Amino acid sequence: MKRYEALAELIAADIRNGTIPAGSKLPSVRKLRAQHQVSASTVFEAYHRLEDRGLVRARERSGYFALGIKHDVFAMPKASSATPQPAQVDISQLIFSILGAVQDRNILPLGSAFPSPKHFPLPRLAKSLASTARFIDPWETVASLPPGHLALRQQIALRYLGLGIPQAPENIIITNGALEALNLCLAAVAQPGDLIAIESPGFYAPLQAIERLKMRALEIPVCAKEGLDLDSLEALLAQHPVKACWFMTSFQNPMGVSLSEEKKQRLVHMLSARQIPLIEDDVYGELYFGTRQPLPAKAFDTQGWVMHCSSFSKSLAPGYRIGWVSPGRFARQVEQLKLMTTLSASVPAQVAIADYLQTGAYDKHLRKLRHTLESQLVLMLDAIRRHFPSTVRVSCPSGGYFVWLEFPSGFDTLRLHRQAAEQGISIAPGPIFSASRQFQNCMRLNFGGQWNEDFEEAMKTLGHLIAEQ
Amino acid sequence: MKRYEALAELIAADIRNGTIPAGSKLPSVRKLRAQHQVSASTVFEAYHRLEDRGLVRARERSGYFALGIKHDVFAMPKASSATPQPAQVDISQLIFSILGAVQDRNILPLGSAFPSPKHFPLPRLAKSLASTARFIDPWETVASLPPGHLALRQQIALRYLGLGIPQAPENIIITNGALEALNLCLAAVAQPGDLIAIESPGFYAPLQAIERLKMRALEIPVCAKEGLDLDSLEALLAQHPVKACWFMTSFQNPMGVSLSEEKKQRLVHMLSARQIPLIEDDVYGELYFGTRQPLPAKAFDTQGWVMHCSSFSKSLAPGYRIGWVSPGRFARQVEQLKLMTTLSASVPAQVAIADYLQTGAYDKHLRKLRHTLESQLVLMLDAIRRHFPSTVRVSCPSGGYFVWLEFPSGFDTLRLHRQAAEQGISIAPGPIFSASRQFQNCMRLNFGGQWNEDFEEAMKTLGHLIAEQ
Repeated sequence: MKRYEALAELIAADIRNGTIPAGSKLPSVRKLRAQHQVSASTVFEAYHRLEDRGLVRARERSGYFALGIKHDVFAMPKASSATPQPAQVDISQLIFSILGAVQDRNILPLGSAFPSPKHFPLPRLAKSLASTARFIDPWETVASLPPGHLALRQQIALRYLGLGIPQAPENIIITNGALEALNLCLAAVAQPGDLIAIESPGFYAPLQAIERLKMRALEIPVCAKEGLDLDSLEALLAQHPVKACWFMTSFQNPMGVSLSEEKKQRLVHMLSARQIPLIEDDVYGELYFGTRQPLPAKAFDTQGWVMHCSSFSKSLAPGYRIGWVSPGRFARQVEQLKLMTTLSASVPAQVAIADYLQTGAYDKHLRKLRHTLESQLVLMLDAIRRHFPSTVRVSCPSGGYFVWLEFPSGFDTLRLHRQAAEQGISIAPGPIFSASRQFQNCMRLNFGGQWNEDFEEAMKTLGHLIAEQ
Repeated sequence: MKRYEALAELIAADIRNGTIPAGSKLPSVRKLRAQHQVSASTVFEAYHRLEDRGLVRARERSGYFALGIKHDVFAMPKASSATPQPAQVDISQLIFSILGAVQDRNILPLGSAFPSPKHFPLPRLAKSLASTARFIDPWETVASLPPGHLALRQQIALRYLGLGIPQAPENIIITNGALEALNLCLAAVAQPGDLIAIESPGFYAPLQAIERLKMRALEIPVCAKEGLDLDSLEALLAQHPVKACWFMTSFQNPMGVSLSEEKKQRLVHMLSARQIPLIEDDVYGELYFGTRQPLPAKAFDTQGWVMHCSSFSKSLAPGYRIGWVSPGRFARQVEQLKLMTTLSASVPAQVAIADYLQTGAYDKHLRKLRHTLESQLVLMLDAIRRHFPSTVRVSCPSGGYFVWLEFPSGFDTLRLHRQAAEQGISIAPGPIFSASRQFQNCMRLNFGGQWNEDFEEAMKTLGHLIAEQ
């Protein structure tokens, strides 16, 4: 990292943690020069960089001011108040009807689960595809049967190593995106009728999987500030025969909140002691706004009970459908399920991504992507402040591209969803994130789109619709 | 088709149907000229072509002789004699232990389920990948959610139209190979505990799926000469509450036999009348040795009970993992299951195959592939005749790349499998093709490899091992 980049990171961290409050003036060039023993031009470069990232703004003749995440104007959403009970799940049709709208190109996708594909180095990946495809050893089409293309598994193992979590390439299984990895894990460790602990609010994929496989769900409350409620989980584990847990431990969908590393460690100990597998969905792990990637729960797994799932779909190559799982002690079961259900992931996509990773360009791309997402979060929070009623509560994501909003009790986001759709805007209403259709007064917004005037306009329209209700 | 090609096809058909018996002299040039009103050079061109395909051989100063399929020296395998009973399935571990060997590059893959990837236009496909990848509309990564890439679905619809079976592109769902299509179909129409009719001997994927999904199997006998025994099926349907059927109607794996079109029609009527879905696995349909592609059962489906599954993995692009299903009345259920489990197939692979199909090169490639496979069947049968005991019974495939062998009762192909593996040769022993582990004296051989001296040598080694038992 260059000196000005390092300095920019330090200042960004101070803005993020409130040491430099949003709206306040940044330290002067003179002060920073003295404090960090750098040249004036290094300080200016750092300021420019922060400006590019949307974290500071220059005001004529008065220096630089922090824009920050400006979260301090909002209250945090409250945790779920319902007492968790095992439940059958019957939510798929609602989810499908709501997601169907997102496939329309003319809809402004605030309800989408994807960031804008324009944030990804698709032309560079296409180059990797083009240059590797003609040299794929025909034998590879057979040899890439599970666990998958060796060079790709080695590259993924290197990234684990970079986090200080050595994983053997032979225990990494390549899948058709993380969604397949998560579904295979669930099928590997649980049967119809089994009870699965999930987050509430949480990603709808576990809800759909539990419904499809005729299992039952036990919803564990997630707090917007600290993530999954571990005390609640511990109490519920004592009462109910939970067969497996499916949690998103970093930048959780839909809240954007993470468990601290201490809590992740406690979670792993709690589950390992009870021999309960943890299916860990870590697809947003690389999209952190902090100075380093938060460790996943897998980092604390000494006994192989954590099945760590991730993918390149959210961070590099949407549409290539390349994900993976490091399933600990369940590696062979997952590999066999993969063989039986979809055989293998697409070979040209595996080879191209391996080639791209070998160039070393991935980390540079990720840095840029993280900056883009963080600056768009600033824009999103600012638009919420300007256009939405002040009673709204807003989560404060430290990564990913989702923000969770809570309106006063009685507000109906399913109704807002229908009204917004008529105006060409999608949102993700709260009930699709809950087996028990809670969170009717909540919604998830996606700030990972291609931010432009249409976004600003859409937020204004939503504000009007909200005010009318 | 050029005149000499047409003439070659006519002669090939005569050899195939026995009008020109294997070993006999071909009609003279003079006779063919007069009979078909063609020039001498056209006749010679046709002869050369048949020679290239391994169907005739020139003997010095005595003209051309038919090699033919030479099947007349073998007896046909007998049908299964066991009375079918509903059964739990517990065969996956045996299948995995046997298939594991095939992934070793140094094994001669007579037991493989794949033809040699060298038979496929992989460099040409790589060109399509390279030229299309850089122009993929980023939006496509979202828009290619199920049912899948539109241009590809349109190309597949055109191929259906060519067979006289119009299918709407919106009812064709792109999958990760046919294996996923078949598995999604089963999950869409049946539940744990349900009874599924399958073929015996039959492809092991249904066995694995039924075991995985805790269903039960009812094995319907397949005759090496006429395919699935429809009388048997009809009687069993009257006795048992069959929830769905999963059959391979053309060039069945492992026997290579097809149902006649009349029988396919009868099958569809029989099942539609009882409202039983037919999951039709048609992955070898394009690999016919006759003069035209046999119609699938889907061609006779007026009520939408046939779920027609196929792929490009066996005929064009192994490793790309692109298959599809036209699921009739179950289209939306299959589409939703696809969305919930693996989201979508790899976009670059879908776009590249669509591009390749648009060039029109596919049919030319298929013609060449069919000729290669047919001539390798001749070589395989010839090697069986020379190296195996005369008591062996052999099926007579009219397409695909599998031949089924039956040894006298008491012969143990699981033992042969272990002995052959020690010699670096894989075979597919009979019991992996049966829920009830029948067919211990049978095996499947793959003649779709890259035929060379190693193959000849492997057949000789197998002959020795067989003689020793």
